[in-house]
Amino acid sequence: MANVAVILAGCGVYDGAEINEAVLTLLSLEQQGASYQCFAPDREQLHVINHLTGEVVEGVTRNVLVEAARIARGNIKPLTELNVTDYDALVVPGGFGAAKNLCDFAVEGAQMSVQEDFLAVARGFHQADKPIGLICIAPVMAAAICGAGTECTIGNDADTAAAIAAMGGVHLDCPVTEARVDAAKKMVTTPAYMLAGQVSEAYAGIADCVKEVLALA
Amino acid sequence: MANVAVILAGCGVYDGAEINEAVLTLLSLEQQGASYQCFAPDREQLHVINHLTGEVVEGVTRNVLVEAARIARGNIKPLTELNVTDYDALVVPGGFGAAKNLCDFAVEGAQMSVQEDFLAVARGFHQADKPIGLICIAPVMAAAICGAGTECTIGNDADTAAAIAAMGGVHLDCPVTEARVDAAKKMVTTPAYMLAGQVSEAYAGIADCVKEVLALA
Repeated sequence: MANVAVILAGCGVYDGAEINEAVLTLLSLEQQGASYQCFAPDREQLHVINHLTGEVVEGVTRNVLVEAARIARGNIKPLTELNVTDYDALVVPGGFGAAKNLCDFAVEGAQMSVQEDFLAVARGFHQADKPIGLICIAPVMAAAICGAGTECTIGNDADTAAAIAAMGGVHLDCPVTEARVDAAKKMVTTPAYMLAGQVSEAYAGIADCVKEVLALA
Repeated sequence: MANVAVILAGCGVYDGAEINEAVLTLLSLEQQGASYQCFAPDREQLHVINHLTGEVVEGVTRNVLVEAARIARGNIKPLTELNVTDYDALVVPGGFGAAKNLCDFAVEGAQMSVQEDFLAVARGFHQADKPIGLICIAPVMAAAICGAGTECTIGNDADTAAAIAAMGGVHLDCPVTEARVDAAKKMVTTPAYMLAGQVSEAYAGIADCVKEVLALA
């Protein structure tokens, strides 16, 4: 049985992990015979967004790990406790949290920086020849993790695809129900809510992403 | 196509809607051919719980509707806008939010009161002969909604089953992967995370609950 580390970047599409993507990742891992452990960075979120209005809530902070614990029902560990040797693969659901709390793509675009703790862990999986699945907007970090020339998808958004190219990645268009695989880099990506109009569409793509990750593990 | 109202009581198992249950309810409705609209009451949560430690966060308030919007990706309406005539059925996921924000069972046990706005809507569905699905701990409200003698399940927890009996309900034991149906009352219930150890167990029971609700719609 493969043992998979899942990194969550909060709880909620606009400032954290996209909730449907996170739940469907855990469901898919379980359904495909893998075990998993959730992790999150123990630091303040970049933003707290009112998900009813879409507006930033001023003067309020929330912690990425504490909020991500809502999705994981408390069964989650700080990212500092993730030892690559204990896991066969890494999967990172999307949502703006991936682009705000794991890197700053949401603010800086192609000039982004990836958070050092997350980058060290993700590169650790890559250097150990273990597969990585990135979902939704998280593939903007694919080249930073696996190097120039890494193939990935965020669906078909032209601006984001251009930013990926500017950062050294190779973007492949992909429908929402599928995943794309860079077999040499062991990088698997799927668009999920970059394209999904329905929960079941995201589920199909995430299930395919998990299938390809486990096949490489 | 059946059109189903889903009422969410926040976002997170310990103070709101159980996140997995909510997502799997929406997924199951979609997979089984129904459309849906999410609603939540626009009021302060009873508690804010740190889901990493399980402790109450003092001096902080969160709004049930605003937090539930995280699960619904912003596509959610206040409970006051729910017109029973527009929907064929009602489904209510569980989590402590159902027992803290829709009623006060978590505090008062069998002496609980159901929030008036929620009770009026739920009784509206019952009086219109439309089915209701209650998940996890939400079935403690079954008799308050549909009257004495209503059959329901929360799994097999003896204390909760006794409280249900004390409030006029009839508790039926039920495994996590199934639902129980009171066909006369059109009340469908499933244990979900009252029993589930895995996401896929909750999914099986919720899918069965949704199937029975849609069969009665």
